[in-house]
Amino acid sequence: MSKGITSRSEDYSQWYNDLVIKADLAEYSAVRGCMVIKPYGYAIWERMQSILDKRFKETGHSNAYFPLFIPKSFFSKEASHVEGFATECAVVTHYRLKNDGTGNIVVDEDAKLEEELIVRPTSETIIWNTYKGWIESYRDLPILVNQWANVVRWEMRTRLFLRTAEFLWQEGHTAHATAEEAIAEAKQMLEVYAEFAEKTLAVPVIRGRKTENERFAGALETFTIEALMQDGKALQAGTSHFLGQNFAKAFDVKFTSKEGKQEYVWATSWGVSTRLMGALIMAHSDDKGLVLPPRLAPIQVVIVPIYKTDEEKANIDAYVEKLSAELKANDISVKYDDRDTQRPGFKFAEWELKGVPLRVAIGARDMQNGTVELARRDTQTKETVSQEGLSTRIVALLQEIQETIYQKALKFRDEHITEVNSYEEFKEVLETKGGFISCHWDGTVETEKRVKEETKATTRCIPLDFQEEEGVCIFTGKPSKGRVLFAKAY
Amino acid sequence: MSKGITSRSEDYSQWYNDLVIKADLAEYSAVRGCMVIKPYGYAIWERMQSILDKRFKETGHSNAYFPLFIPKSFFSKEASHVEGFATECAVVTHYRLKNDGTGNIVVDEDAKLEEELIVRPTSETIIWNTYKGWIESYRDLPILVNQWANVVRWEMRTRLFLRTAEFLWQEGHTAHATAEEAIAEAKQMLEVYAEFAEKTLAVPVIRGRKTENERFAGALETFTIEALMQDGKALQAGTSHFLGQNFAKAFDVKFTSKEGKQEYVWATSWGVSTRLMGALIMAHSDDKGLVLPPRLAPIQVVIVPIYKTDEEKANIDAYVEKLSAELKANDISVKYDDRDTQRPGFKFAEWELKGVPLRVAIGARDMQNGTVELARRDTQTKETVSQEGLSTRIVALLQEIQETIYQKALKFRDEHITEVNSYEEFKEVLETKGGFISCHWDGTVETEKRVKEETKATTRCIPLDFQEEEGVCIFTGKPSKGRVLFAKAY
Repeated sequence: MSKGITSRSEDYSQWYNDLVIKADLAEYSAVRGCMVIKPYGYAIWERMQSILDKRFKETGHSNAYFPLFIPKSFFSKEASHVEGFATECAVVTHYRLKNDGTGNIVVDEDAKLEEELIVRPTSETIIWNTYKGWIESYRDLPILVNQWANVVRWEMRTRLFLRTAEFLWQEGHTAHATAEEAIAEAKQMLEVYAEFAEKTLAVPVIRGRKTENERFAGALETFTIEALMQDGKALQAGTSHFLGQNFAKAFDVKFTSKEGKQEYVWATSWGVSTRLMGALIMAHSDDKGLVLPPRLAPIQVVIVPIYKTDEEKANIDAYVEKLSAELKANDISVKYDDRDTQRPGFKFAEWELKGVPLRVAIGARDMQNGTVELARRDTQTKETVSQEGLSTRIVALLQEIQETIYQKALKFRDEHITEVNSYEEFKEVLETKGGFISCHWDGTVETEKRVKEETKATTRCIPLDFQEEEGVCIFTGKPSKGRVLFAKAY
Repeated sequence: MSKGITSRSEDYSQWYNDLVIKADLAEYSAVRGCMVIKPYGYAIWERMQSILDKRFKETGHSNAYFPLFIPKSFFSKEASHVEGFATECAVVTHYRLKNDGTGNIVVDEDAKLEEELIVRPTSETIIWNTYKGWIESYRDLPILVNQWANVVRWEMRTRLFLRTAEFLWQEGHTAHATAEEAIAEAKQMLEVYAEFAEKTLAVPVIRGRKTENERFAGALETFTIEALMQDGKALQAGTSHFLGQNFAKAFDVKFTSKEGKQEYVWATSWGVSTRLMGALIMAHSDDKGLVLPPRLAPIQVVIVPIYKTDEEKANIDAYVEKLSAELKANDISVKYDDRDTQRPGFKFAEWELKGVPLRVAIGARDMQNGTVELARRDTQTKETVSQEGLSTRIVALLQEIQETIYQKALKFRDEHITEVNSYEEFKEVLETKGGFISCHWDGTVETEKRVKEETKATTRCIPLDFQEEEGVCIFTGKPSKGRVLFAKAY
């Protein structure tokens, strides 16, 4: 078909871009670095939102909404926070346009804001300024709030879904009476993300904590889930932060404890974004297009009729109506592609490109034999099966596909965690095989920076299942207490 | 209780504000004119979203997402559009902050945008610029897309939910091959809104079309639903626009027709916003607080135990567990308020303030008698009923409450549509009774402007069930072909 995409081996980056565009997921807009998420891509994001939102509510959180704009002065209140975000802020300076008299629309200089407003890159500051009014005593805690919102970070080099100036996300912001409770919350939400990645995205992840150098601006501890893409690069898929009392101190948020003492409140924040779309696409897809895990596929089953006469078509239609009703009763989303403007081969390629997990083709002879042809998108295998009990079979098959996609990604990931014991080995593995490299490191920012400069690899995380092991840093020879994971990353 | 609110008769506007704040729906933020929607208020908005979104999908629409920012030049392309929005635009001019060397965070003048970006007040321009790339032939039409998003209109005088600088809404943007199809779409979506207002919000609305003067900036026809608040003021609750070919021409969006001709595409747009929260609050609530129709209430039933001993409490707990399970199985959201820090009377007042439709109180004697006390929020009536078959009774009662709230609002609205035949009568009704005033008008913008200046009343709409009737304009004596509705409005 005309919508051919570049192969992964030829140019991985171009393959990704082709896929996003040609599978109708997203495109660049007229605004530098901002994307348009097209209906097919947005339908996948909606499925992600709905599953995550349910989990957030099950774990006791409520949604709320905070302003898009943040007064500039708020940023200055938490030192490392402003340092982390100042260089990528969209700044609103005026609130009116006018006609300059010659028909041109210009900014009205009389409508200059006294204090500039920042388009939120993240909402800790405006939210903690708000929480100040909500919290007086320990009875007001915990506050367990989440927000679904758009945020803006003025990135210079952008890629659809992975890095865009505007993106969509959710940001949880919780307030607690004790450090222990806040740490437990941050860990709980990391586990919610990890489970979502593995069970829904079918992407295995490593749960870990970031090194000081890689932490969120303002956090005492950043927990992360790290996924591996098919090109051997890592992708940070979600983070959950223990913020200590940093924002409470910056915005003077205290509570009266049970013992009657005034104490600063403890905080967490946690988020995942439309970046997950990038992870989803790169983890599973192939040279024919998207491979979507059934739990996220907007269309789980596509049915294509193959016929010559109107009578054959009518015959197939009647059967498909019955089958579709059975599938829908099982909460399976079905599309019957009976367009008469395209040939079956074109349709097959189109739905492969769009990653529909299962294709059902039905010809006139199938109708005589009481069969259909099932084609799996993930394994690209076909089989002819009986129409008898078909909907039950499809329900089971979709579960199997979900699991197979996960297992395949897991196998690839596990094969791409390599222990190395020297810098030579480190560089060789990085260049030839890629993936996560498990090695001893001396724990200093200086070494991290040097390694990044020389190899582009960064520490991805200190795994939560970190094992104490005496060793020496492969870069400096200094003593080390255990292995951490390095990788090149998105 | 301490959370007393101003009465409606005392100060309607203060009553509204008290209610929004004290029922924990929303509050002003640190950013001028922007609100924080608190969890309880947001839960109501989420219910609205979910019901509307389902209807949009049932009528064939898909969701998508377009950029927050719009290049300034896009606005200039549709003349009446820029005229309508230029004076209330938040303008992004820079993309970086920096430390000025003395520790102050300032805008980095080296990071000035070549072209300013407008924070979207509505998205017709960026969307039609995008549709240009999506449409070649009639086969690409119709495009039926909706977006849930935040928008910014720099209002000088703001009120929570009713008029805020940033608000949340949905905006549908559709593209069609013919004018007829686009008009049918605009009318269909108006009917979706009207049905939602009446069946879900329990707010009766008048379906109509706006006069030329009151149309959306860029529309050929604006359809509207107009609701009436308890103070006799009208509130525009949703609009649906037939945009003709205005935006297609501004952004050069043509398609090849079946006949092979190049034609401009026809457009609609339609939206409702968090303003509906204001309509909901003002249409039904009373001096004790919110009155929520069951279909939108985040908590539909609150259960309050009344007990002295631990044994009595344990006895009530066991019953409530069973009752709650039955209600949840019927998709009813229940809260068991067994806080031991507050007395029953305090709890009653708190849930009245928050508009919970039905309260179940259970005391020790009730447990002996096999009864409970049911209290309806809408009518403020109480009755003692048997525990036997209680969940079935509650399901039916919630439906009855929904209907009663609607009928009450309908009666009030119908009593407040007054036909007048002179300007004297018009002014008298406006000042004493308020509501919609049905009268003859000469159809000119000049008369509308004069009437607005003199009385603050505006044309709300020409009702869709407009009857031709010969008459004379009550303001100018010029001939008129039928009655239109005037009112003071939010």
